[in-house]
Order: sequence, then C-alpha cells, then structure tokens
Amino acid sequence: MHQVDFSAYWQCCGNPSRIVWAVAEAGGRRSICPLGWKMNTSMAPPMMVIAVAPARFTHELITASGEFVLAWPGEALASATLLCGTQSGRDIDKFARTGLTTAAGQYVQAPLIPECILNMECRVAGHLDTGDHTIFAAEVLAVWANEHPEKLLVSAGREEGYQVLLEEGFYRFGVIKG
Amino acid sequence: MHQVDFSAYWQCCGNPSRIVWAVAEAGGRRSICPLGWKMNTSMAPPMMVIAVAPARFTHELITASGEFVLAWPGEALASATLLCGTQSGRDIDKFARTGLTTAAGQYVQAPLIPECILNMECRVAGHLDTGDHTIFAAEVLAVWANEHPEKLLVSAGREEGYQVLLEEGFYRFGVIKG
Repeated sequence: MHQVDFSAYWQCCGNPSRIVWAVAEAGGRRSICPLGWKMNTSMAPPMMVIAVAPARFTHELITASGEFVLAWPGEALASATLLCGTQSGRDIDKFARTGLTTAAGQYVQAPLIPECILNMECRVAGHLDTGDHTIFAAEVLAVWANEHPEKLLVSAGREEGYQVLLEEGFYRFGVIKG
Repeated sequence: MHQVDFSAYWQCCGNPSRIVWAVAEAGGRRSICPLGWKMNTSMAPPMMVIAVAPARFTHELITASGEFVLAWPGEALASATLLCGTQSGRDIDKFARTGLTTAAGQYVQAPLIPECILNMECRVAGHLDTGDHTIFAAEVLAVWANEHPEKLLVSAGREEGYQVLLEEGFYRFGVIKG
C-alpha cells in the first residue's frame, strides 16, 4: 500500500453513487438540490441523513422548515439533475426551468415530484455540523412510488458497466447497463 | 404515485450500495464491521460518516477509542464480508477466521487491511443518535491505496448489470459487470 490523496478515493471507491434530490420549501419559496451524500441511518423508525453545504439555498429552506422530500431520479432526469445541481434556487425557479410537476404530500409542505421513481416525506430530527457540510438526520414519514419506475440514476465510475447518459466536467450521470 | 412501505425503497432505489468495512480496536481487542450505511460529509477537511447499531461490538470499540479505519473491499472479499457481517467480534477473531492480514497506520491504532482497495484512517469528530443507529462523523487523516486494485464490492440490486459473487438470504454481493 502507498499513501494517496483523498481525491484518489473518488476514482476507485466513490462510485457508483446513487443520486437523490432534496426538495425543500419555506415561506413560499422552494428548490431542488441533487445530492450524492446521503445514507440510511435507522430501520425503526425509518430515517435517512443527507449532507448539505451551508451556502446552498436548500440548506436555508430545510433549516427554516425542518422538513424536506427525498426524490429519487431515474434515467430520464439526468439533464434536470445537472441543471438543478449547477444553478441556485435563489436565482431561478427550478420547477419552471425543468418543467417538473409537483404533487402534495401528506405530512410535509415540500412537494413530491411525480417524475421521480420514489419520494420520501422527511422531517428533521437532528443535525450535526461536519466540516464544510451540515448533516440533517430525518425521519421518513411516508414513501410514494411511481407506477412506472425507471432505472435509478447514479454517478458513474470510469470503469465499464454503465450506460453514461450525460457527462459534463466533473459530472458523469448514468445507469447500470442492462 | 401510490403510497408504499419503506421496504419498497430497497427494491428500486437502495442499490447499488458500495460496501465498506469499519475496522476498530480498543484495549487490545479489534473487529471488522461491514457497513452499507456510510457517506461523505466534507471535502475540507475530508470527512466521512457511518451509521452503526449500538449493539455492535464495533460500536463499543469506536466509542472507546474515538477512531476507526474505513477499508473498502474488492471482489475477492465477498465471503469475508458475509462472515464479518453475520458474526460478532465478541465471539470470534475475525482476522484469524478470514486470514486477513493487517498493517500499521500512521495516525490511528486500528489496523489497515492491505487486502482492501483503499484504507482510510479516521478520527471521530462528532456523533448523533438517530433511531436505532449511531452516526459517527470522522475526519479522514490519511488514505492508503492498494497497488493492485480490484473491482469494488457492492450490494447488488435485482436488475441486470451485476456480476453476483455471493448470495445468501438478505445478502447479495457483487460487482458492476465489466
């Protein structure tokens, strides 16, 4: 073994990473923030955690509302993911720009996105400051599934086995090849 | 959309999930705990978080030492992952049983595992109780890479595109097909 820079991690062990959108709303404003940094953290009750940078508009909306939706995008949403991940909801209305529709959830104010494979209504139960991101731990109150699920969108590695759908700079989105 | 049970998540959005081993040592005792629940949480400083159930021996060792190693297994370590994930380090010596070797790190007491693709030396910086698991947030102090990396081991979904290496009950380990 030899010592390497942290960035070496991304090349051999950082992908595939599933992509999820944090959808948040507060005071009549809302946004969509694509994230790679998410994990399960409890089975009973079901809980998920996400890491969001404090500068993000979505960080502000989650902090204000204590709620968010986790929407899991499929293969049709690669370019919407790029747009939502590279623009700020402070500057544009991501729903208008992507043409995504919304649906009302049962427990939280933030909208569900029917175009996604699965939507989870989440209520923040705790948070932790970690370096340059904040961890939000949230209870999953309800899960909504699309009737016609697609393949799950992932950040693809450089190795074979992916159908790469969109590549731009740092970003490389695709699905596991069928 | 229709409302579904949380378990539906695993079928359509829970995989592929990369596997990592948390390796911990305290008071001369040590263990290996395979985890699916891990994520990045900071770039500067580099930080990772893991979720570990309080009943786990590794939870006890991390709590006592404030340190762990994250070792990323490749395709050759599917059966070692199953053994380490289904037995407790309180009952067996997982190093002896798997035949894995160890190497000394630079910053933490817990050993590196040279058979893994990448090893990260981690020091706990914070923790958060979340339902039935504890989140440990840790700074990555050093990263060690194997000279001959293999394909990264993942929990495979039911869809095509994986080379499934080992399947037993709930567990389905494999790699992305080349």
